[in-house]
Amino acid sequence: MSTKTKKISVPGFLANGISVGIKPSDEKDLGLIFSTTPAKVAAVFTKNSFKAAPLIINTERVKRGIAQAIITNSGCANAATGKEGYKDALSVSAELTNQLNIKEELILLSSTGVIGKRLPVKKINSGIGKLVKGLNELGIEDAQRAMMTTDKFPKIAIRKGTVGAKDITICGIAKGAGMIEPNMATLLTYVMTDALIDNKALNTVFHQAIDSTFNCISVDGCMSTNDMAIILANGLANNNPLERAQARLQRFRDMLCDVLQELCQAVVRDGEGATKFITISVEGAKSRSDARRAAYAVANSNLVKTAFFGHDPNWGRIIAALGSAGIPLEKEKVTLSMGGILVFSQDGPTNFNASKLKDIFQKDKIEVRISLGGGDKSYYVYTSDLSHDYIKINAEYST
Amino acid sequence: MSTKTKKISVPGFLANGISVGIKPSDEKDLGLIFSTTPAKVAAVFTKNSFKAAPLIINTERVKRGIAQAIITNSGCANAATGKEGYKDALSVSAELTNQLNIKEELILLSSTGVIGKRLPVKKINSGIGKLVKGLNELGIEDAQRAMMTTDKFPKIAIRKGTVGAKDITICGIAKGAGMIEPNMATLLTYVMTDALIDNKALNTVFHQAIDSTFNCISVDGCMSTNDMAIILANGLANNNPLERAQARLQRFRDMLCDVLQELCQAVVRDGEGATKFITISVEGAKSRSDARRAAYAVANSNLVKTAFFGHDPNWGRIIAALGSAGIPLEKEKVTLSMGGILVFSQDGPTNFNASKLKDIFQKDKIEVRISLGGGDKSYYVYTSDLSHDYIKINAEYST
Repeated sequence: MSTKTKKISVPGFLANGISVGIKPSDEKDLGLIFSTTPAKVAAVFTKNSFKAAPLIINTERVKRGIAQAIITNSGCANAATGKEGYKDALSVSAELTNQLNIKEELILLSSTGVIGKRLPVKKINSGIGKLVKGLNELGIEDAQRAMMTTDKFPKIAIRKGTVGAKDITICGIAKGAGMIEPNMATLLTYVMTDALIDNKALNTVFHQAIDSTFNCISVDGCMSTNDMAIILANGLANNNPLERAQARLQRFRDMLCDVLQELCQAVVRDGEGATKFITISVEGAKSRSDARRAAYAVANSNLVKTAFFGHDPNWGRIIAALGSAGIPLEKEKVTLSMGGILVFSQDGPTNFNASKLKDIFQKDKIEVRISLGGGDKSYYVYTSDLSHDYIKINAEYST
Repeated sequence: MSTKTKKISVPGFLANGISVGIKPSDEKDLGLIFSTTPAKVAAVFTKNSFKAAPLIINTERVKRGIAQAIITNSGCANAATGKEGYKDALSVSAELTNQLNIKEELILLSSTGVIGKRLPVKKINSGIGKLVKGLNELGIEDAQRAMMTTDKFPKIAIRKGTVGAKDITICGIAKGAGMIEPNMATLLTYVMTDALIDNKALNTVFHQAIDSTFNCISVDGCMSTNDMAIILANGLANNNPLERAQARLQRFRDMLCDVLQELCQAVVRDGEGATKFITISVEGAKSRSDARRAAYAVANSNLVKTAFFGHDPNWGRIIAALGSAGIPLEKEKVTLSMGGILVFSQDGPTNFNASKLKDIFQKDKIEVRISLGGGDKSYYVYTSDLSHDYIKINAEYST
């Protein structure tokens, strides 16, 4: 089932998204996801030292393993806002508690947008009544709209399947589109499922799934202060409970990975100014960490990215970027292939067909395959190119 | 004395620069620096794993501590070219040996330009006769011209002064302008001096001077395969010899630092597409390494760079970049000032004047000062902004 599915819903989840005037335009900027029953929760947060206020609050709240609502505003990140920002977030939390009539610790908070500006609490709190009143089973798409900033298209993925003898649904929503280099976390990604699963299994599976999806992407190598991924599992499918070390957990993990894979690829496709979707895969490394460093060194090189944007078959920049990764390399064993063409081996260029390589650089999807020839560990990164539109979008972002 | 000085020369040094048709235009692309007497030499090379062929050869040759000539071509980097590239470089070396009639191990080689392409040895070698024949005392500017690639202006700095009871001259030339993030090395920088100095002192002083100048700049965070800095000291000034642990060595080091400081700032000012010269200084760090990581995390953030380009006072991006540096931070103690305006302290924005901050972002020279409040170590980085022209230059570089 693809993102095109009409009428996206997950049993027991209500959602809504409205405009309260935080964004200068009339676009939706306040969204809510609500589980009719308290749900198991797992979450991962950015490693940035300057975590935004809502993340500091959420980190404490998710420790209980249970949550029921996620409220998100766009247009203001409430990051680098100090004690005042923390109070602002708590004020939104208090108002939502009143309107939803649930315990405050079941509420998770999220903000995205400009860093360093105070949260417009008055606007948000005066809209919460309307937001709650409009909660509905088909509101997930509106909630997703409300968290978009520079995104050009919505990012929703859903899978249905049978797990533990019952039909379950997993639905994820995400926002991009810049400041994207997740580090053990992601931009904003929320996953809703009606699966019945215990906290330990949910935690384990969610971290594994994030690690192989959202932790393998980069748009601009910039790590956000507000990155966060949350999964809510309300158990309404009433399947045979999922626990760790069960075979049936594998089926759930596969579905979850599918959802997150679709979302994280959508985030890269919608990377600010992106014109290409590039996969950098590194194999033959001595350690996964070496493979990761190599893949990110290439993925985050502005010179590699601009060559892709310019359809310029300047493959030497990939080798230069790899050489700067700071990992031990046996140069003679390194190979580089692009779109199936072996370009570099034995420390020099092969006798490749230059016009065929030029064709590869023209494509919208490009696969860069690097083998280090020194081990059996691998890593891949999805990334985008660096274009004039990235500069345009980001030179004019806050003003 | 500034770069505007006419008739730049250093006693005992001849130089020349000509066009042999490597570049598609008629611009100079082959340059030579020659000391009439064998000179003491010190050098630093890129840490890139895929060092270009000439660097591999030079690394061996400088071990003897003596050199007499540096030949440089632009238009082709002779990097990622394997054994063939190595042979190509040796072929140029052999031809130059014949023409100069000096020992081959006294010749240092250098190439800059597109990575992964074979060196046009025939063109180079057929021009070496003319190159040598035209060597002259006022040829340094021509030699500098011949090593320019995307540089918009030449980079030459010269200082004269009295050291060890004699007048000495130090003159440096450098090229930029992209793939600039030196790591214990630099782009291409050659320094010529007539000072009399022993090898140990020359090595020590040169490494110190590079460390506080060229190792503190970044244009695009990309480390080249061809970075190299070389100093030749031919001793013709016949000053009282400079040795390590001498007071008079300090005077020489100061002059050398002046020359390199002027050159490295010129490289940043001429960064590809640069419209601004930005100094990121980090103080109050527990270690110099922490301060360095913090400074480079900010300097290399595409989002920080595009904000500067767009005159967008989005200071929150600086905090976000700092938070991604992966160093321990006491958030409450961190302060951020820009152009003398305290913007961020105690984990939140100060009550700064927004219109004054906007004025700061309009300027061509911007100082960003970060204090970590956790120690007494510091570091600074010179960097540029990220503009449309960077994309334009690099999307069309090799083709």
